[in-house]
Amino acid sequence: MKEPFKIKNIAHLQLILASQSPRRKELLSKLGLDFKTQNVDVEEDFPASLQREEIVEFLAKKKADAFPIKPQQLVITADTIVWHENQLFGKPKDIADAKAMLRQLSGHTHEVFTGVGLTTTHKQRIFSVRSEVRFAPLSDEEIDYYIDTYRPLDKAGAYGIQEWIGFVGIEAISGSFWNVMGLPIQRLYQELRNF
Amino acid sequence: MKEPFKIKNIAHLQLILASQSPRRKELLSKLGLDFKTQNVDVEEDFPASLQREEIVEFLAKKKADAFPIKPQQLVITADTIVWHENQLFGKPKDIADAKAMLRQLSGHTHEVFTGVGLTTTHKQRIFSVRSEVRFAPLSDEEIDYYIDTYRPLDKAGAYGIQEWIGFVGIEAISGSFWNVMGLPIQRLYQELRNF
Repeated sequence: MKEPFKIKNIAHLQLILASQSPRRKELLSKLGLDFKTQNVDVEEDFPASLQREEIVEFLAKKKADAFPIKPQQLVITADTIVWHENQLFGKPKDIADAKAMLRQLSGHTHEVFTGVGLTTTHKQRIFSVRSEVRFAPLSDEEIDYYIDTYRPLDKAGAYGIQEWIGFVGIEAISGSFWNVMGLPIQRLYQELRNF
Repeated sequence: MKEPFKIKNIAHLQLILASQSPRRKELLSKLGLDFKTQNVDVEEDFPASLQREEIVEFLAKKKADAFPIKPQQLVITADTIVWHENQLFGKPKDIADAKAMLRQLSGHTHEVFTGVGLTTTHKQRIFSVRSEVRFAPLSDEEIDYYIDTYRPLDKAGAYGIQEWIGFVGIEAISGSFWNVMGLPIQRLYQELRNF
C-alpha cells in the first residue's frame, strides 16, 4: 500500500462519490484519496433543447441537487454521454439497439462528454470534459461478437473502451482517456485542488 | 470466462510474447488469444544515427532476430521509447535521473513510440506506432512524491501512464492510449489479422 498524496484544501471534507459505476469508483480510487460511495436516485431526463456538454452538466447538477448532503461532505456526481452526428448515444435499450449504435460509430470519430459536479452545503462547481474517439471500421462479425459476449447495455454508446472492442476497435483518442471511461480524473484532481 | 474471438489466419501458429513487461502481457491478454511469454536477452543498443521510430523498429527487429524461433511459432517483440525535444528518454539510471526526466516532461507534450515485430521462421513484419502525451505542469512536490513512492526505474521516460502520475498529471493524449502503456494493441490486432 502506497502512502497517499494529500490534497490539503479538501482534507477536512468527507469525500462521497455519488455513482454506482464500478469504473468511476476504480478511477477515483487511483488518486489515493479516502472516499465512500452513496447512490443518488434521479430520473436522468433533461430538456430536449440541450446538446453535448449542456446535457452532462445539467445531469451532474441534477444528481448533486438530489443528493441528501450533510455538512463537511464533498459530493462528486458525474454523467457521461456519447455524441455522434448531432445525436445523443446513451445506454442502449436492448441488444439490437446496441448493435445499431456500434454500426453507426464504426469507422467514424465521435465525442464523449463527461459532466462532473463538486458540491458541499456551501458551494458547487460544475464542469465538463470532452474527448474524441476514433473507431476503426468494425465488421458485423466483430460487432456481433462484442455485443453478444459483453452485453454492454449499461454503457453510453454501447461500448466500454476498457473492454475487447476498445482494444481491437479504437484506433485513436484525442483528449483524456479516463474521461471516456467515465471520469476525467486529471481535471477532477485539478478542480479538487482548486476547490 | 468469455469465449475468445478467433483470428483465423494465425490460428495454426503458437503465439509467443518475447517480453518480460507485465503491462505488455496484460494488454496482449485483452485480445483473448492464447499465448505464452518467453524472454529474449539482447543488448538494447542501437546506432547513434537512429531517431524516433527508427530506434524502436531497430530494437523490435533486433529482439526478434535474437529469438530462438521454432517452426509454427509467431513471436511478438516490442520496444517503447519516449522522445522529447530531439532527445531519447529511456529507462532512468537512478532516482535523480527519473526526477530530472519528469521535470523536463512537465508542462510539455512529448511523443511515445512503440516498435513491434511479428516474426515466424518464414516471415517478418516490423511496424511502429506514435502517440502524443501532454503533461500538465507538475509541482516538485508531485514529482518527488511519484518518483519516491512508485520508483519507476523500469519505465521509459520515468512514468507509467496507468500509475498515479498518469491520473493526476496527464492532461491529454493523441493517438493510441495502449501504445503509451507499451503495446499498440489495436494496430497489433489489425496486423495479426493481415499477417
